[in-house]
Amino acid sequence: MVKSKKEEIKAVIANASNVYVASVDENGYPNIKAMFARMQEGIYHYMSTNLSNKRTQQFIKNNKCSLYYCDERSYKGVMLLGWIEVCTDQTTKSLLWRDSDIIYYSKGVDDPDYCVYRFVAEKGNYYYGLQNIDFDASELE
Amino acid sequence: MVKSKKEEIKAVIANASNVYVASVDENGYPNIKAMFARMQEGIYHYMSTNLSNKRTQQFIKNNKCSLYYCDERSYKGVMLLGWIEVCTDQTTKSLLWRDSDIIYYSKGVDDPDYCVYRFVAEKGNYYYGLQNIDFDASELE
Repeated sequence: MVKSKKEEIKAVIANASNVYVASVDENGYPNIKAMFARMQEGIYHYMSTNLSNKRTQQFIKNNKCSLYYCDERSYKGVMLLGWIEVCTDQTTKSLLWRDSDIIYYSKGVDDPDYCVYRFVAEKGNYYYGLQNIDFDASELE
Repeated sequence: MVKSKKEEIKAVIANASNVYVASVDENGYPNIKAMFARMQEGIYHYMSTNLSNKRTQQFIKNNKCSLYYCDERSYKGVMLLGWIEVCTDQTTKSLLWRDSDIIYYSKGVDDPDYCVYRFVAEKGNYYYGLQNIDFDASELE
């Protein structure tokens, strides 16, 4: 991948406040939801959510996942394929925790219903204008 | 479902210019992309795209689909689950065609690479604030 495209992809990801996350449910249907795009480090992307919710339970059974970041104004979209690790360890939970999260998790960072999704990207597709390119996630590092 | 929630869901759908569309690929991964939200009529939602592209070929093999409409400013999201019919008949193609589509399909509405997705909703989930409700797609009619 040429450097300019790599930089464009990284900019779409860095500038997105939300990320669209898809799982596959027990009946084989894809399920989409919007989540806050909290943190990215190379091929790792982190989001926080409730351990008890339906989507988390889907990922525990089937960890295949797609993330989609987009810049609607410029018609750019980055899809990443990989898998989700549902993390409940203190280190990962603390990594994402913000004080304002208390409105979602009344017991704070130790709330047993608070967990972190650690997404590991394997490959991706970048759509821009009328073109798109496939890439390996390692190319973004 | 109470009437006010039904109206909210319909408003999120009606006001969205884009819709996030997920398929399941041949390796069992969900795949997301953004598309123009062209037309909705009750449980039927229409988008247009290229017949030859990867996503269309996925839907021809596996028609299970999720659509996601959202209002990012008010943290409202509507997920619909159902299936996609890839339509290449003249009537459905004409239904969606706009003159400006010529930039994508050089041969116009008769372009053999132009097709229409007809999504049929079965059920859905509406997320608003910190709550969410499941519903049958028929409740939106």
